[in-house]
Amino acid sequence: MTNMRNLTMMTDLYQLTMMYGYYKHGMSENEAVFDLFFRSTREHSAYSIMAGTESVIEYINNLHFTDEDIDYLRSLSLFDEDFLNVLKNLRFTGDIYGMEEGTVVFPYEPLLRVKAPIMQAQLVETALLNLVNHQTLIATKASMVCYAAQGDKVLEFGLRRAQGPDAGILGARAAIIGGCSSTSNVMTGQLFDVGIAGTHAHSWVMSFPTELDAFRAYAKVFPDSCMLLVDTYDTLRSGVPNAIKVFDELRAQGHKPVGIRLDSGDLAYLSKQARKMLDEAGHTDARIFASSDLDELVIQNLKSQGARIDVWGVGTRLITSVDCPALGGVYKLAAEIVNGKVIPKIKLSENVVKMTNPGIKKVFRFYDSNNMAIADLIALEDEEFDGSVPLKLYHPEQTYKTMTISNFKVRELLVPLFVNGKQVYEVPTVKESAEYAQRDLATIWEESKRLMNPHIYKVDISDKLYDLKQKLIRESKGN
Amino acid sequence: MTNMRNLTMMTDLYQLTMMYGYYKHGMSENEAVFDLFFRSTREHSAYSIMAGTESVIEYINNLHFTDEDIDYLRSLSLFDEDFLNVLKNLRFTGDIYGMEEGTVVFPYEPLLRVKAPIMQAQLVETALLNLVNHQTLIATKASMVCYAAQGDKVLEFGLRRAQGPDAGILGARAAIIGGCSSTSNVMTGQLFDVGIAGTHAHSWVMSFPTELDAFRAYAKVFPDSCMLLVDTYDTLRSGVPNAIKVFDELRAQGHKPVGIRLDSGDLAYLSKQARKMLDEAGHTDARIFASSDLDELVIQNLKSQGARIDVWGVGTRLITSVDCPALGGVYKLAAEIVNGKVIPKIKLSENVVKMTNPGIKKVFRFYDSNNMAIADLIALEDEEFDGSVPLKLYHPEQTYKTMTISNFKVRELLVPLFVNGKQVYEVPTVKESAEYAQRDLATIWEESKRLMNPHIYKVDISDKLYDLKQKLIRESKGN
Repeated sequence: MTNMRNLTMMTDLYQLTMMYGYYKHGMSENEAVFDLFFRSTREHSAYSIMAGTESVIEYINNLHFTDEDIDYLRSLSLFDEDFLNVLKNLRFTGDIYGMEEGTVVFPYEPLLRVKAPIMQAQLVETALLNLVNHQTLIATKASMVCYAAQGDKVLEFGLRRAQGPDAGILGARAAIIGGCSSTSNVMTGQLFDVGIAGTHAHSWVMSFPTELDAFRAYAKVFPDSCMLLVDTYDTLRSGVPNAIKVFDELRAQGHKPVGIRLDSGDLAYLSKQARKMLDEAGHTDARIFASSDLDELVIQNLKSQGARIDVWGVGTRLITSVDCPALGGVYKLAAEIVNGKVIPKIKLSENVVKMTNPGIKKVFRFYDSNNMAIADLIALEDEEFDGSVPLKLYHPEQTYKTMTISNFKVRELLVPLFVNGKQVYEVPTVKESAEYAQRDLATIWEESKRLMNPHIYKVDISDKLYDLKQKLIRESKGN
Repeated sequence: MTNMRNLTMMTDLYQLTMMYGYYKHGMSENEAVFDLFFRSTREHSAYSIMAGTESVIEYINNLHFTDEDIDYLRSLSLFDEDFLNVLKNLRFTGDIYGMEEGTVVFPYEPLLRVKAPIMQAQLVETALLNLVNHQTLIATKASMVCYAAQGDKVLEFGLRRAQGPDAGILGARAAIIGGCSSTSNVMTGQLFDVGIAGTHAHSWVMSFPTELDAFRAYAKVFPDSCMLLVDTYDTLRSGVPNAIKVFDELRAQGHKPVGIRLDSGDLAYLSKQARKMLDEAGHTDARIFASSDLDELVIQNLKSQGARIDVWGVGTRLITSVDCPALGGVYKLAAEIVNGKVIPKIKLSENVVKMTNPGIKKVFRFYDSNNMAIADLIALEDEEFDGSVPLKLYHPEQTYKTMTISNFKVRELLVPLFVNGKQVYEVPTVKESAEYAQRDLATIWEESKRLMNPHIYKVDISDKLYDLKQKLIRESKGN
């Protein structure tokens, strides 16, 4: 269950003008196949974590124009009544294959493959890109932050700095898929059944005569989940000593305090000093939670300085993916089906990496006997690979480099989500997708996961796809 | 009208735990005053453009917990039934003063001032920050992009790369307030009655046997709004010549073509060449629309190279505010009202710029006789300024620099939005807010609007506020 509205009108106007054009030219029965993919991962990451599949499914299931929508479109004076009638009855009737949420994905791999009458396939482009671009971006960023935290818990709490409500709500959901243990966002907890966390702010401390009064008041209400924010006045001279006093009182009453939170200052120094003070007072099990403009690089750096931080709170820099606030996903025509005949399509470009892979495709992942991923292969729909037959793979950019693999295991990554407009996929819970992401990441070599100069994971295209691509390039030079 | 859901549960868990704490300690009748403000503008901009006020009003009007919300909160095992009952009946009963959308705003100025029972004031923090941070960020970025475009039309079309649906929908709305002439986003057009625009994509061209066929097919359906995308195969050798052929045919039929769109390549070179070809063919009124990773710096650069571009399409870099994807707005306790007595509050910090301005405040803007803004002043609620009495202002950071102004006009920037929980503000249309932003920007000196090293606009605090701040700093050193 999500909070999704009917987003049918959330599209670019040119989708509607193109739909009208296809309709007026009698082409609306033609089927089209589009691939949604991205061309490069962000800096510091060789992989991305797929997210947004559930939102895509809800969007497609909701797809219809209301009477008010039709009235608005009529008011634009662009379309005739026959076309508006077609829109009124439009429902999605096509097939969608997609990557499951939590899948480790790479450049050029179709994350979604849409096969539908061209009007429908065009209409949904904008929303599919919006949903997958955003959620994959945040799940990936979260995965990087959690990689840096080396198994420590990471709490997402960026809602106040997110780019609007959905960015906060769906972003927190994506962060959980990417590896965060919980979020501060109550609505995300409610909608997606994920863990939520939170204690108190500086304003709580300021609302009492003294810091000690504020801590005691908080401990009284939450004696068994007492986490105290210690930096309102002076972390080491006031905050930590007052927290220790209250923790002593709690233990005397038979409660176990949770710990303290640092939200400013030199987190390496303060956490080491606070750890020492807590330990000397006998609160060795009190945890130290830290926040303050954290991201994967700051966490890695604090770790290397020996900071004594147990839980990391990550806000703005995760929820906005601050160093790379957009995944450049695109949605490109791969084939048209006219009178039952598949016509592969290619988008040429002066830039060779911008040339698309034509035809209806699927994606294979090959594993070695230790269940570690060797490489991915983008192939055509009718191709099958059997691990018993050796397979020669080419480096995606430096094609003179080759590698022959044998005795490998094969897995197909695209799963059917919709067939003939009907949802055929059972959406996992967010917790299941998060666990799946961890299992999938475990099959990727450390060398491709590190944050500094990660090793590029091999994604090749099949010989058959390569030949088709070359043929279409040659043919279309005539245009 | 917006697309806003009930966002009551879109809050951080710690707001609810603090509310519970205040409730359990019998403090829930205390009133609190919070200011929402930011501490610094983005690089390359001395000002920001306020946006989000309408969303805030809808959020507050919608504020209530449903039975399902209460059930969920009960399931957390954090709160007692009495408190859940209080939540069930909670409505907003306080006062909110705010900046109108389109107002030019500066650091430290309260953009919203919330006075309400402390439980309510705390509950709404997260959503208010989310809505104002995001929309102000995007309106400001749009203003910078439009500044660079020097009066040319700017079309927003970043929906596919926005951070979720709201970021696209509300972001496009904010972009219009900031100065964009239209958006590609159909839903934003429908919800907010703003102009939408769009023609066709590369996939349209690829769906016909030849580019010329595709152009003719488009022109046939839209003979009077024919804008052709010319870079699918080869801009100058194929796209522009084919567009000219179709434009010739359109004119022969009595239609006036709109122009061409460049979406890749060297936009300076291509636009100059395309302009020449169009002019030589007699299509001097055909406009050139350009897009491709544009932002204010690229536009300024293309202008300086003499690019012949009439309309600018800006996507990813505007809708995500790519160089600065979050406005660091905060929400800080400024006063508490206990038994009718106002107790000003200050948040101390080792960092002097992080110390808050205490008390219930308002914001004045002073104008010279040419209606140009001289400076802003943050003052206490009971202060009034009369332009006939000379006023000494201090530089906000280098306080030894002073300036005395006289014969100035005075305007208060905060307007009442809610009084005793009732909306008292009539929300302008988005078009009206966009026009207001242009009028407000016209009162700001060019020196403070330029993109390179803009002159810092003066925002001072009143003597009375300064004295109060110093007094509270001295007093709270005892903490």
